[in-house]
Amino acid sequence: MEAVQGSVDMIWIMLGAMLVFFMHAGFAMVESGFTRSKNTLNILMKNIITISLGSILYFIVGFALMFGPSAFGMIGTQGFALLGDADIAFFVFQAVFAATCATIVSGAVAERVNLSAYILLTVAITAVIYPVVGHWIWADGWLAGLGFIDFAGSTVVHLTGAVAAFVAAWKIGPRIGKYNGKIVNSIPGHNIPLGALGVFILWLGWFGFNGGSTLAADPELVPSVIANTLLAASAGVLATAGYTRLKYGQIDPSLTLNGALAGLVGITAGAANVSFIGAIVIGLAAGVIMTEAIRLLDSKIRVDDPVGAISVHGIAGIWGTIAIGLFDTSGGLLYGGGPEILGIQTVGVLAVVAWTSIATGLVLGAISLFVPLRVSAEEEESGLDFAEHGSQAYSMDEVLQGSSGTGDSFANRLNQLGEASATSKS
Amino acid sequence: MEAVQGSVDMIWIMLGAMLVFFMHAGFAMVESGFTRSKNTLNILMKNIITISLGSILYFIVGFALMFGPSAFGMIGTQGFALLGDADIAFFVFQAVFAATCATIVSGAVAERVNLSAYILLTVAITAVIYPVVGHWIWADGWLAGLGFIDFAGSTVVHLTGAVAAFVAAWKIGPRIGKYNGKIVNSIPGHNIPLGALGVFILWLGWFGFNGGSTLAADPELVPSVIANTLLAASAGVLATAGYTRLKYGQIDPSLTLNGALAGLVGITAGAANVSFIGAIVIGLAAGVIMTEAIRLLDSKIRVDDPVGAISVHGIAGIWGTIAIGLFDTSGGLLYGGGPEILGIQTVGVLAVVAWTSIATGLVLGAISLFVPLRVSAEEEESGLDFAEHGSQAYSMDEVLQGSSGTGDSFANRLNQLGEASATSKS
Amino acid sequence: MEAVQGSVDMIWIMLGAMLVFFMHAGFAMVESGFTRSKNTLNILMKNIITISLGSILYFIVGFALMFGPSAFGMIGTQGFALLGDADIAFFVFQAVFAATCATIVSGAVAERVNLSAYILLTVAITAVIYPVVGHWIWADGWLAGLGFIDFAGSTVVHLTGAVAAFVAAWKIGPRIGKYNGKIVNSIPGHNIPLGALGVFILWLGWFGFNGGSTLAADPELVPSVIANTLLAASAGVLATAGYTRLKYGQIDPSLTLNGALAGLVGITAGAANVSFIGAIVIGLAAGVIMTEAIRLLDSKIRVDDPVGAISVHGIAGIWGTIAIGLFDTSGGLLYGGGPEILGIQTVGVLAVVAWTSIATGLVLGAISLFVPLRVSAEEEESGLDFAEHGSQAYSMDEVLQGSSGTGDSFANRLNQLGEASATSKS
Repeated sequence: MEAVQGSVDMIWIMLGAMLVFFMHAGFAMVESGFTRSKNTLNILMKNIITISLGSILYFIVGFALMFGPSAFGMIGTQGFALLGDADIAFFVFQAVFAATCATIVSGAVAERVNLSAYILLTVAITAVIYPVVGHWIWADGWLAGLGFIDFAGSTVVHLTGAVAAFVAAWKIGPRIGKYNGKIVNSIPGHNIPLGALGVFILWLGWFGFNGGSTLAADPELVPSVIANTLLAASAGVLATAGYTRLKYGQIDPSLTLNGALAGLVGITAGAANVSFIGAIVIGLAAGVIMTEAIRLLDSKIRVDDPVGAISVHGIAGIWGTIAIGLFDTSGGLLYGGGPEILGIQTVGVLAVVAWTSIATGLVLGAISLFVPLRVSAEEEESGLDFAEHGSQAYSMDEVLQGSSGTGDSFANRLNQLGEASATSKS
Repeated sequence: MEAVQGSVDMIWIMLGAMLVFFMHAGFAMVESGFTRSKNTLNILMKNIITISLGSILYFIVGFALMFGPSAFGMIGTQGFALLGDADIAFFVFQAVFAATCATIVSGAVAERVNLSAYILLTVAITAVIYPVVGHWIWADGWLAGLGFIDFAGSTVVHLTGAVAAFVAAWKIGPRIGKYNGKIVNSIPGHNIPLGALGVFILWLGWFGFNGGSTLAADPELVPSVIANTLLAASAGVLATAGYTRLKYGQIDPSLTLNGALAGLVGITAGAANVSFIGAIVIGLAAGVIMTEAIRLLDSKIRVDDPVGAISVHGIAGIWGTIAIGLFDTSGGLLYGGGPEILGIQTVGVLAVVAWTSIATGLVLGAISLFVPLRVSAEEEESGLDFAEHGSQAYSMDEVLQGSSGTGDSFANRLNQLGEASATSKS
Repeated sequence: MEAVQGSVDMIWIMLGAMLVFFMHAGFAMVESGFTRSKNTLNILMKNIITISLGSILYFIVGFALMFGPSAFGMIGTQGFALLGDADIAFFVFQAVFAATCATIVSGAVAERVNLSAYILLTVAITAVIYPVVGHWIWADGWLAGLGFIDFAGSTVVHLTGAVAAFVAAWKIGPRIGKYNGKIVNSIPGHNIPLGALGVFILWLGWFGFNGGSTLAADPELVPSVIANTLLAASAGVLATAGYTRLKYGQIDPSLTLNGALAGLVGITAGAANVSFIGAIVIGLAAGVIMTEAIRLLDSKIRVDDPVGAISVHGIAGIWGTIAIGLFDTSGGLLYGGGPEILGIQTVGVLAVVAWTSIATGLVLGAISLFVPLRVSAEEEESGLDFAEHGSQAYSMDEVLQGSSGTGDSFANRLNQLGEASATSKS
């Protein structure tokens, strides 16, 4: 019977892993839809390389650092390349999580980051920066020892990714044309339906993200985790729709779509610990907090984040983590408990922000010794698809003339599009 | 062992719920793809608000009215906000169903309904209208007592949604330009591949819609439910492809894509009760019936339904419900039974049509006292994306100049696009 | 307890079947995105008709020929229309596989094949050609008797489909404009983000394709099959990105996206037999092999394959099948075994190539007696969407004037677009 239950738990974790994998399609669609079409291929490459590189690096290094036997509650020390008696199902589930954290950065640095620099940062995040945080909180790490609660990763995945994103976006600077003295310009996304599809895919994946984090097909726990996830996302949508309606006179579609994500990030820490009403309140607050955070970051702090990733994943991630101190049904402030949980949650947030920002800053500094962090102004103006890929995302129905040389049509095509881009930009 | 089986059943229901949730992405893509791009953001908002509002309302009110202890077989009376000993997994599964019913309306009223009116109607549908029907048929309701069969909701979900859609579409009137005296114009969708993606997503989700409705991982039942679903959808596609080929000389892509949905709606009532051949016949008939229904509604009855939702969900829903009277392997007319099942199925259809049309009509009448049901002609011509959201779904690669005011770039953007739309429409 | 385990296995197979079904959405998006927009509706029709026709034919004929009691290890003989004591869950799983094989052809013949000819070829593939191969390898067939290993179908599904695709593409000839004397032109896809979405969907579906092929929720096997699938796909992406970077100076997005698919095809044969490192190596090699195969086929052999299907599914399929002879952890050449496995794998590949190419050639010859295999040059130039469907995939926001005749707006629309296309092409 234990064997049978084991097989049930295993397929639940596998289903969760598949759904989290699919979130990478969601990120790709969200980031493509909310940015300009001249950079779309580049964003697709960043996204597919992140899951690919992340999976392999996490296999070689990351999983061991995150879940290996602990050295001083700081970092794991064994299990590289899954040698030893690794739980393979658990590895797969964790691998797609790691790549999710890394890919949060891609939206914030979109449209001007140098692809090589981004790839090197992804290596650092999936191999070291993220596993350390995960070790502290989900393995025998010191934060877990303190009782820090992060059920499925509001902090481990989303805040970590968002902090790295913030440091990177701040360091490489805003897109050309975003700021003009006092004026804050807006750069609309080229395909909002694609972005909306991405949001729906992320929401679907989140059921696996949160649901799978029970690591067992537990009928006492899984359904309420799923219900809380559904209710918080819904609340995030409604809050943002209502808030933008009140504040701007109209429901803002881009913000409302992101409201779902804010609610989802917000519930990720406490999905197993809060009530349904608690989930709804967390979601409602997440939507409003995210909207204000986007505004502040965009207009006051002036860190250019093309898709709002820092606010959606970071600020809502902090909220979701702290909120446990209020809403945890067995000890939160609103349930008769004291401020202890709140305190521990705050300590954890500060520790992760400190580690991630310092580590990311150092890594970016090291990277910049070898490759520029940002493309040239010329490349940025012409679009990263031409600059880094000699190609374009959308084409009229046309036949491109090959050269009469080697017959290698791919070399021809790259040359061809390169020439076309040169002529069209001149 | 019962505990283990319970965990298996639970994850099957959760998987079903996730797939049905994803159908909302499918609806969003179908409706966007088959309508004009100047209304796309509005359609995306209608869809994401429907699942969000629906989930929360169903939590607060709908689930209790649908499954609470029955008052006279008419309506449930307890369990609001899931208080009491609610089956959470069952709640989640039912919540995404409720929102599916409501979202059927959004396609039929697309491109001219007032967003506030639509939202208020959604409240009424997910909180009351749909739960009453569900109570009659899936709980201790009077239709269930009569032996009415609707395995996964051809009537409960699809017919109910389609009747509400018909009443709303009829009441608010056709789109400007659709009819011109005797002439029936066609208004092509702007992005059929997006619509096709939506159809595939809906088909995928339907495996959860029908498969999950067994409410248990029953190896004697689930596989044939899934098989029937696959065969009926396939038959719907082939029937519509063949029928349009015969009738119009060419395979019509939009109708053929909808043929899959018609087959799926058609098998939803009897997926657990009919044979494989029965499923194929039901699907074949559904495709033809839907095609003729779309034509009649569009050209004769002249109710403008931009995506064919009324025909796909309503007429095919009636067919699927009635078809049980013919094809039920244990008592249908073609299997040696008498006309009893046929009679009960017909009674149920009539009752649901009566209730839903009267309730929807009354609700719309009440709504119209507070907000117009329809946008102004000017707003409709300029497109709902400008009129209701000050935005657009697709953009050229551009930077929009902010104003030099507060630095609040979202307020600026809304103003900016509003000005841009004003100038471009002048 | 066996009953409970049976229900667990059943839902794992059902989940696998659903994911493989969804791959048809992936194929539709990949093929649409990588070809021209004037042919998009036609591609969508080919894809949805393939899964529909395939499911029903496989139900009537294919499943029996593939898994029925064997006649001389060559072909099955019983179980038509699932009569007898068929395993329904297994049927559903196998049905969506069969359609996957057939749909591989649609990409290779895109933009010039006659739709009727394609449909007739699909009938032959799903009813006979594919089931014979499947019988040889997965049932009591002669290749299975020899010990040929093909865990989830590198040969049965992907090589078979690719060989049929090669024969068809070679027979119908290249697209107009593809070759011009010595010059090889390139014809860019119209919507690469759509293609990327398709790749992500295929990757997701492959977890079901490989994972479900265990046919049981086996905690000792399923997790490593899933892990191998993830690692091989990732390696395929990285290899192709790196290889195109080295060879052409830039990461090529279309090839890199296909690299994921090559890795997936490559691991499909051995996902249950190789180590994690083996999976990574197989994926790395698959990416490079695919890239070179695409180049050779496109420029040297000059068979026009608009989406690279022959290389991705065929050449990588051969590699994946042969690779077992090297990497099988219990007997491969690199693990101390002799060349026996390698020999058997090679025999199987040759047999399948021989059978499929001969059968496909004969079928196409027969079809060409009744319908042309290819559309006319005029139809090809104007686009198959006009030629075969009187419609278009994308529309400006417009209202199309109906005629004042019958009021049948669909007949009107077809006429209307037909007239529009006639005028615009004149």
